[in-house]
Amino acid sequence: MAKFMDVHHDMKGVTREQLMAAHRADLAIEKDERVHFERAWADPASGTVYCLSEAPSAEAVQRIHERAGHPADEIHPVPLVV
Amino acid sequence: MAKFMDVHHDMKGVTREQLMAAHRADLAIEKDERVHFERAWADPASGTVYCLSEAPSAEAVQRIHERAGHPADEIHPVPLVV
Repeated sequence: MAKFMDVHHDMKGVTREQLMAAHRADLAIEKDERVHFERAWADPASGTVYCLSEAPSAEAVQRIHERAGHPADEIHPVPLVV
Repeated sequence: MAKFMDVHHDMKGVTREQLMAAHRADLAIEKDERVHFERAWADPASGTVYCLSEAPSAEAVQRIHERAGHPADEIHPVPLVV
């Protein structure tokens, strides 16, 4: 298992309710891929959303995000954390 | 005070020691601008580093990062957190 930070660039105007609904949609199916989405941070002004997860691979992260209806634009493994 | 996620794109090959040293350099002076750097995540392969902070403004975050020798390439307020 590894940590990943994924980024969505096209969520301008996202509301707190929409962010929570998107996160819940991920949580509902994440176990299918042994992924866990830990946190998400959103900048509604620029439309940027960052999601921190623990997962077996970037592909597993993307499969969950795709099935939940919001594929990520970037997924970075982040093996270093301080 | 608000939450910010800032991003550095040019840190390819960053090591755990370098990331910790950079973070410590921020922590040593962050109080001057009432900033607090909470966490940082690094992808040495792509050279991407994400820093989560609490601060009065994006400009305050950047002033600390600049004085510490590593200005951010992007700074996003992230008012929504789940």
